[in-house]
Amino acid sequence: MNHSLDGARVAAILAAVGRLRPRVHCLTNTVAQNITANMLLACGAVPSMASHPGEVGAVAAGAGAILINLGTISPEGERAIPALVAVARERGIPLVLDPVFVELSPLRLRLAEAVLGLPGVTVRGNATEMAALAGLVGEAQGVLRVTTGKIDRIEGEGRMFAVAHGHEWMTKVTGLGCAASALVAACRAVEPDAAVAAAAALTAYGIAGEIAAGQAAGPGSFAMHLIDALAGLNEAALTARIG
Amino acid sequence: MNHSLDGARVAAILAAVGRLRPRVHCLTNTVAQNITANMLLACGAVPSMASHPGEVGAVAAGAGAILINLGTISPEGERAIPALVAVARERGIPLVLDPVFVELSPLRLRLAEAVLGLPGVTVRGNATEMAALAGLVGEAQGVLRVTTGKIDRIEGEGRMFAVAHGHEWMTKVTGLGCAASALVAACRAVEPDAAVAAAAALTAYGIAGEIAAGQAAGPGSFAMHLIDALAGLNEAALTARIG
Amino acid sequence: MNHSLDGARVAAILAAVGRLRPRVHCLTNTVAQNITANMLLACGAVPSMASHPGEVGAVAAGAGAILINLGTISPEGERAIPALVAVARERGIPLVLDPVFVELSPLRLRLAEAVLGLPGVTVRGNATEMAALAGLVGEAQGVLRVTTGKIDRIEGEGRMFAVAHGHEWMTKVTGLGCAASALVAACRAVEPDAAVAAAAALTAYGIAGEIAAGQAAGPGSFAMHLIDALAGLNEAALTARIG
Repeated sequence: MNHSLDGARVAAILAAVGRLRPRVHCLTNTVAQNITANMLLACGAVPSMASHPGEVGAVAAGAGAILINLGTISPEGERAIPALVAVARERGIPLVLDPVFVELSPLRLRLAEAVLGLPGVTVRGNATEMAALAGLVGEAQGVLRVTTGKIDRIEGEGRMFAVAHGHEWMTKVTGLGCAASALVAACRAVEPDAAVAAAAALTAYGIAGEIAAGQAAGPGSFAMHLIDALAGLNEAALTARIG
Repeated sequence: MNHSLDGARVAAILAAVGRLRPRVHCLTNTVAQNITANMLLACGAVPSMASHPGEVGAVAAGAGAILINLGTISPEGERAIPALVAVARERGIPLVLDPVFVELSPLRLRLAEAVLGLPGVTVRGNATEMAALAGLVGEAQGVLRVTTGKIDRIEGEGRMFAVAHGHEWMTKVTGLGCAASALVAACRAVEPDAAVAAAAALTAYGIAGEIAAGQAAGPGSFAMHLIDALAGLNEAALTARIG
Repeated sequence: MNHSLDGARVAAILAAVGRLRPRVHCLTNTVAQNITANMLLACGAVPSMASHPGEVGAVAAGAGAILINLGTISPEGERAIPALVAVARERGIPLVLDPVFVELSPLRLRLAEAVLGLPGVTVRGNATEMAALAGLVGEAQGVLRVTTGKIDRIEGEGRMFAVAHGHEWMTKVTGLGCAASALVAACRAVEPDAAVAAAAALTAYGIAGEIAAGQAAGPGSFAMHLIDALAGLNEAALTARIG
């Protein structure tokens, strides 16, 4: 049986993000950094994005969640990964992995494997990326698997949530999948149930996408309306779309 | 005699991009990465942007075209250039060079020279940048020279195409020249005649700019409308503007 | 007594930027590079953003002002800082420091200290960042201190300017503080009185923010309208808001 969240639950988690303003430390690709930061700000979270080996541990230490995104990974970012995993482990900071294009790069597969050694990781990717990680992210490893697409699937600890919101323009703007992973991290910072956090983030994001699609003339204006819609989401709007 | 393309030809090349969805591997500057990716997505192509020396060859190997843009070149990006040139040579992948600010930097001039050693390269720059490369990109070297400005000129193999579309706001938004080079690469991935590919890309882009200018209130909104206009271009709109 | 500038003075400085088109060389974080470049272009300045140790000195040498922003500082950027400080010193190029998140990182504090050794530096940060630099930026050191917030304060050489313009959405879009520092640099390139330059930049920027807030539906559309508003500012609009 598939679980889903009602509008009140999603709204309560978004409200907690807005009230607690968790900082999400993002080691993410340079293409998506800007829209990722703007999506986090739109839902009330605070982005930080240091990657220098000489500071990344110190900056991430006070974060409410950590995101590691493998897009445009640099040698410097590669060195930052073990530092971030160590900080997450020592301080119990939730960590989300986004394995961008892992199917194209043996280097990224190796880096993903290192991150997945941390218990309790959430991994968010598209179907191709998740398939490339099969074997590393099974039920046995205790990884929460978030596969986004026309219907998002959130699987782990024997449960499955399905989220059937969104719009096809979400695949026509660069960085929107990366930003989804950051929103999952922001919700995880305030919600201890990782599957519920991911479902809340993707439900809110998908519904914001549906609202934005009703206002946009194409993928360019869609991106702007998506940020506005996410910033303006409330329980009534969520409940109306969830039905 | 100057050549130009009619709306049907431009539309056919755009349709091929949308149908074949070529991946364009971009080693490009961090200022322009986001809008470059969004322009590629708007016309149906798929961007990838790895630059790590440990993966750039593997990621670029399956691309339909490669773009090397020298803006904000890093030591890491500098090391990626020979790897990309080698992949392009071995696999016959078309390569486009964008020599951003080459007139200001002896380092960029040296890097441009290395790229221009690959037969069949297309180089796209403004008049100042192209002048700084004079001697390296003459008719003798077999380089396709694309000089953008009020009128874009595409020169090579004894032919000259001229494109007289666009809007002055295209010089007021950062990265739009860089994105033009990426569109040239996307069209080149599906069109073997490099001059025709460049003319098609710049005609479509210039006309999208004209449409966007009619909708925008300034350079900020212009960028968004340009993406929307490019995503919505069709043969009728192209033919109406080409006349 | 707090000073402020009238519309004619602000408009005259903006007009000088538009006429002289100073190049502002920005060593800035990869999150804010794009919007920083677009804000500079919107007011008529020209951005350049090289950071490679092999070219950064050559590229910055002809700039009208230099910005050093410590966000997402990389090992490469770290090496570029002394080169930029040396060029600024040798050629008398005005330099603006933006100490992003300096309170979170001992590395950034050390880098800020190195930059502040250059006489005549302007430093622009929020209250938390400026507090972290206390002791380094006192009246004795000859640093112009620009603390932005609900009311911006510009302090140095025994004078104080206050700017009470802007909108809360300016804290909800990533990179807008970073872009403010770049505008301070652009005005400083054409105005020898550093305090007047900073006051003019922040007055124009805050008023553009007020205009944009009247047009926007949320932080996403606000960013676009802010660029449009800055590009369209004139003396009448400035004077109407300054009162």
